[in-house]
Amino acid sequence: MAAAGTGLVIAPGSDLRYLLGQAGGSFERLTALVIPADGAPALIVPKLEAPGYADLPLDELGVEVVTWVDSVDPYELAAKRLGSAERVAVSDFTPALHVFGLRDALPKAEQVLAGPIIRELRMRKDAAEIEALRKAGAAIDRVHARVGEWLRAGRTEAQVGADIEAAIVAEGHTAADFVIVASGPNGASPHHALSGRVIEAGDVVVVDIGGPVAEGYNSDSTRTYSVGAPRDADVAETYAVLQEAQQAAVAAVRPGATAESIDAAARDVIAAAGFGDFFIHRTGHGIGLDVHEEPYIVAGNSLPLEAGMAFSVEPGIYQPGRWGARIEDIVVVTADGRESMNNQPHGLVQV
Amino acid sequence: MAAAGTGLVIAPGSDLRYLLGQAGGSFERLTALVIPADGAPALIVPKLEAPGYADLPLDELGVEVVTWVDSVDPYELAAKRLGSAERVAVSDFTPALHVFGLRDALPKAEQVLAGPIIRELRMRKDAAEIEALRKAGAAIDRVHARVGEWLRAGRTEAQVGADIEAAIVAEGHTAADFVIVASGPNGASPHHALSGRVIEAGDVVVVDIGGPVAEGYNSDSTRTYSVGAPRDADVAETYAVLQEAQQAAVAAVRPGATAESIDAAARDVIAAAGFGDFFIHRTGHGIGLDVHEEPYIVAGNSLPLEAGMAFSVEPGIYQPGRWGARIEDIVVVTADGRESMNNQPHGLVQV
Repeated sequence: MAAAGTGLVIAPGSDLRYLLGQAGGSFERLTALVIPADGAPALIVPKLEAPGYADLPLDELGVEVVTWVDSVDPYELAAKRLGSAERVAVSDFTPALHVFGLRDALPKAEQVLAGPIIRELRMRKDAAEIEALRKAGAAIDRVHARVGEWLRAGRTEAQVGADIEAAIVAEGHTAADFVIVASGPNGASPHHALSGRVIEAGDVVVVDIGGPVAEGYNSDSTRTYSVGAPRDADVAETYAVLQEAQQAAVAAVRPGATAESIDAAARDVIAAAGFGDFFIHRTGHGIGLDVHEEPYIVAGNSLPLEAGMAFSVEPGIYQPGRWGARIEDIVVVTADGRESMNNQPHGLVQV
Repeated sequence: MAAAGTGLVIAPGSDLRYLLGQAGGSFERLTALVIPADGAPALIVPKLEAPGYADLPLDELGVEVVTWVDSVDPYELAAKRLGSAERVAVSDFTPALHVFGLRDALPKAEQVLAGPIIRELRMRKDAAEIEALRKAGAAIDRVHARVGEWLRAGRTEAQVGADIEAAIVAEGHTAADFVIVASGPNGASPHHALSGRVIEAGDVVVVDIGGPVAEGYNSDSTRTYSVGAPRDADVAETYAVLQEAQQAAVAAVRPGATAESIDAAARDVIAAAGFGDFFIHRTGHGIGLDVHEEPYIVAGNSLPLEAGMAFSVEPGIYQPGRWGARIEDIVVVTADGRESMNNQPHGLVQV
């Protein structure tokens, strides 16, 4: 970065947690880790929020704390620290409010995303990070193993979801980050969450759930259930295609394979069976401190996979107005293949 | 806007909820309401998330839904819709990821914040919005009325906070948005949340709590408690100054007064008593669908108040290492003065 004359500005969020050990938090007041191309890094923080960072080893990391009070311009403080940087890279989820504040304080610097820099640090998980993902995966597997306790005809998606949410915490997460119980026709909407729909016998139900464990790393796993025998005659055959596609994509994961080749491995199976138009999203997303992060498993991403990369493999087939299905595991690339963090059976689970 | 050649891009969040009735949500995929300087507005949304917007009266509002699938460039879709806008105003909390995506797709347009435009719509609350704020204020008042049930020596801040969190929901909020229980020396940190500190007899404890009601509007109220008689001899006298300052600032609220004059009304009382250096934040922030929004009650903000504006009045005095105190009400400017949404007693509450 120094060679490239690029300064870095990291707003609260997972990037800050990765670098400093704490995600921080902020509303409209600027908090940011500012790393100049040359010179010492600084944590710029509103004076009233500074005590929240007192437990971090900032001295040890060589990070100076620069506080500011209301009616001071924090962007000028950041600009002063960044000096004559030619380029300022800001973290991907920095609010426009702060992006433009920095731009106006440093009008000659080109603004770019910090994502491509930070991902080089975050994308390859080390042993401790993989262990945290394994722990999260085992915890969410235990929740899936218990779905039959709650999922039955006559209950609403919201009721089932509330039970699952409690179990996500009970089985070892610090919180439930998302709970999708998409029954019958709702299953055809990949990001449907919960509704008051009463589950009926014969429904196919997509259950996609996850959350962070104490270390901050996330689980994310989907299994598809049927309440008694499926109502629609095409479920068994279609589901078999989906399962084959998901297996093919997982089996394709190894160092050197490209991200897009994993997407293609799933998509080719689904397209060959004539369901290509019903698989309306990419095959997966990286996972770690964020539920969605690099690498994305999507057409056009020629990134070669490397050991330590962690991502979801989650093809789906969605039949508008009728039903949908998805199967999702988190996998980590190993030296010679992959390890799956999720190990519940992949077949349609009849409850 | 049309006259000014300005197109608008509104990302998920409170601005979107204000305009369309739903905050939406998104990770890294672009969802945005795009309002061109001329031509019809469009909601650009990932195809897999489009069903989540199906219940909105978008047809009625004249908003076309434009879906996109992974591997399509959504910024090109937005740029096409914005046409030859000279300026593109993006909502204040749009992530940098999308800000730069739009910038690169429309390199000739100047990017500015949408905040100054949107605040003209959001800043003056109508009767229904004020009623929602009143409902939220009454709900949080009921929680403060019950704090004595939970706050006592021997319990941790976290234990007291968990009880308060449950009560925030039980008394009529859809969720607790924040719970600050800052006891003893922690009270000197304005944004301290909760810790494992065991509360002791003689502690002064700042309790700052709030959350949204079903309509989406928020409560936010602070009262300061003491567990038995305060340990420190200077509490009573200092607290009296704070209470006088808060009353003076509330009394100064009327149409035509500037935002900064309300800040000054509180600050002058505190400074005159010699505590100026211990009041380390602005006097308040606007409130509505966001907990912090315009108008900010801060030095340098010469905005004249108008009927319908809603904001907090919350001076504090913080004694590092020993104790702190804050008193906070939400007030709404009326035709001839102000109405307070919070009406619990303002004195130091001994429990």
